[in-house]
Amino acid sequence: MTEFGFSLLAEDGQARRGQISTAHGTIETPAFMPVGTAGSVKAMLPSQVRETGAEIVLGNTYHLMLRPGAEEVAALGGLHTFMNWPGPILTDSGGYQVMSLAELRKITEEGVRFRSHIDGSYHTLTPERSMDIQRFLDADITMAFDECTPYPATEEQARLSMEMSMRWAERSKNAFQARAGYGLFGIVQGGVYPELRARSVEALENIGFHGYAVGGLAVGEGQELMFKTLDVTTPMMDRTRPRYLMGVGKPDDLVGAVARGIDMFDCVLPTRSGRNGQAFTRRGALNLRNARHKHDPRPVDEECPCLACRDYSRAYLHHLIKAEEPLVMTLMTHHNLTYYQQLMSGMRDAIAAGNFGDFVAAFNAEREEGDIPPL
Amino acid sequence: MTEFGFSLLAEDGQARRGQISTAHGTIETPAFMPVGTAGSVKAMLPSQVRETGAEIVLGNTYHLMLRPGAEEVAALGGLHTFMNWPGPILTDSGGYQVMSLAELRKITEEGVRFRSHIDGSYHTLTPERSMDIQRFLDADITMAFDECTPYPATEEQARLSMEMSMRWAERSKNAFQARAGYGLFGIVQGGVYPELRARSVEALENIGFHGYAVGGLAVGEGQELMFKTLDVTTPMMDRTRPRYLMGVGKPDDLVGAVARGIDMFDCVLPTRSGRNGQAFTRRGALNLRNARHKHDPRPVDEECPCLACRDYSRAYLHHLIKAEEPLVMTLMTHHNLTYYQQLMSGMRDAIAAGNFGDFVAAFNAEREEGDIPPL
Repeated sequence: MTEFGFSLLAEDGQARRGQISTAHGTIETPAFMPVGTAGSVKAMLPSQVRETGAEIVLGNTYHLMLRPGAEEVAALGGLHTFMNWPGPILTDSGGYQVMSLAELRKITEEGVRFRSHIDGSYHTLTPERSMDIQRFLDADITMAFDECTPYPATEEQARLSMEMSMRWAERSKNAFQARAGYGLFGIVQGGVYPELRARSVEALENIGFHGYAVGGLAVGEGQELMFKTLDVTTPMMDRTRPRYLMGVGKPDDLVGAVARGIDMFDCVLPTRSGRNGQAFTRRGALNLRNARHKHDPRPVDEECPCLACRDYSRAYLHHLIKAEEPLVMTLMTHHNLTYYQQLMSGMRDAIAAGNFGDFVAAFNAEREEGDIPPL
Repeated sequence: MTEFGFSLLAEDGQARRGQISTAHGTIETPAFMPVGTAGSVKAMLPSQVRETGAEIVLGNTYHLMLRPGAEEVAALGGLHTFMNWPGPILTDSGGYQVMSLAELRKITEEGVRFRSHIDGSYHTLTPERSMDIQRFLDADITMAFDECTPYPATEEQARLSMEMSMRWAERSKNAFQARAGYGLFGIVQGGVYPELRARSVEALENIGFHGYAVGGLAVGEGQELMFKTLDVTTPMMDRTRPRYLMGVGKPDDLVGAVARGIDMFDCVLPTRSGRNGQAFTRRGALNLRNARHKHDPRPVDEECPCLACRDYSRAYLHHLIKAEEPLVMTLMTHHNLTYYQQLMSGMRDAIAAGNFGDFVAAFNAEREEGDIPPL
């Protein structure tokens, strides 16, 4: 059996090039994980997700526990079999989404009681139940159950929230059933307060996890404050474990966070904004819904190997958007995920070669030279 | 340059096995043409459409003239390039859809004046304009502009409608610009009246077309009356030209129509009903939306090679439908088109082998033995 593990292959400043080993395969880092909320990366076959370069996808505990149900997924062979994704899967703990999507939430020390946004049924999520659900789903990487501290929050609010998350982290660790190749990650909280982040890192490392996430960022604080928080947080985190920045982000967020020592990311941005007609490119983002693309025979990006750029004009994509043709969701998602994966692959190569600084400079220059006006 | 042509390879009773040669490739008949209304077989990459066995797709003149516009498609290289389908394309004349979809229609001898259902703009379709549009689209097979006689219609109504369609057929022929590999089909009208059908067949053959369609069926008259009308119509039609039954149909409609000498079909049923959760199988149709599939680990059909049956359970498809995941449109469409194409391929083989009667008997027996309850 594969042991769950992380190999640090190279460092360049704070940036790291590594490999995560899991029961369902290896992930090259820095890595971007497409979001497959309800057991599907929307509008994409798993083979198409893999084709973009993705090695791991994310599943959402909140969505899957409500529909079809964690025990149901287990009875059908686990999430890998259910959704036909043979590679590694990370599941979130449900903590973030229960707060943003569910109704009538009530938080106590025990956990969160809520009503389903789908059918109004009552459910309770606790650290113990979250561990059970993620085990039923067969997640290669399980996330500890936490509260994502809202922004803005006073230092006192952030402290109380973080301290509860640390108690929940310990309960998560106790409830997690260790298996070879399966890992459990703790989540650093503490808002934008360096002292609280430091105490959270220390608390988690005392409990001991296979990896550590930075939570509570990308919640409205802006890139500058996010980077400032990473600047004080990642240097305190265990150098020998993977570091995951949850829910991030835009291409320049990824580059800046890798420069600050982050190894893993997930975000709905490339998939969701793709379905809405936004294409990411090396030179900025294009909104294909815009009428100026109506007659344009060029692909979105001539150098991009994705399904959309290989075979279709901007005019065709524009037409599909206007006609509400479902194919455009597949094409745009394939394009955006390809762009994100190529960005990650470029960063991995640059870190390995020791020229990540040059990579960042070229990344910024290409965007500034771009002839693409802002959206 | 390929000449447009039809080779009759075998006959078994009225059923025919043939080949149509076009500028963009050969079509084995009897053939089923998936519908790509607005320049896309909904939710399917062209490579996936091809993978199901389809050799020709249908485009809709009415939709494409309104959006993005026929001249626009021509400027972007024609419909094959625009939608990335390198194979043959048949376009309808717009006559049927302008009557079913447009607003404020006014029919005169000249043609049809109407308002777009998309933006309210005014347009006129005439035989001459329909030929221009289909040439701009670069259709391998162009359909003459006609009026689809509604059902029910009195014999007098059906006669007047058919006679106008015949005058429009002549104008279509005069306006069609002959090119090697491109064909023009006339459309037999006359409702359910054998005498009118006979006169329509005669009128069209006097004008002379590369192929002949049977129009005005599958409009509410029911299978029995449709077959009765075919029984008296196809034997009068030129044996050396392809015969196309427009807008048909259910699997048993196809089998019955092939038995009556039809070579080509199109219908939105497999694609549209697939998107709505209905799966066609050898043993009847399954509605995957139904709760009885929620826990079912079996594929829709264990012998089906489609994307859905190869990799997914009925439970997963049911889940995707409930969660409104767009991937289910691709999977279900791929399944249904695969079923339709396998049905056509089975009929082609049976006709070539001279045992089409056995094929029909086995087709009926398998459906009757099926354990699938009606929808």
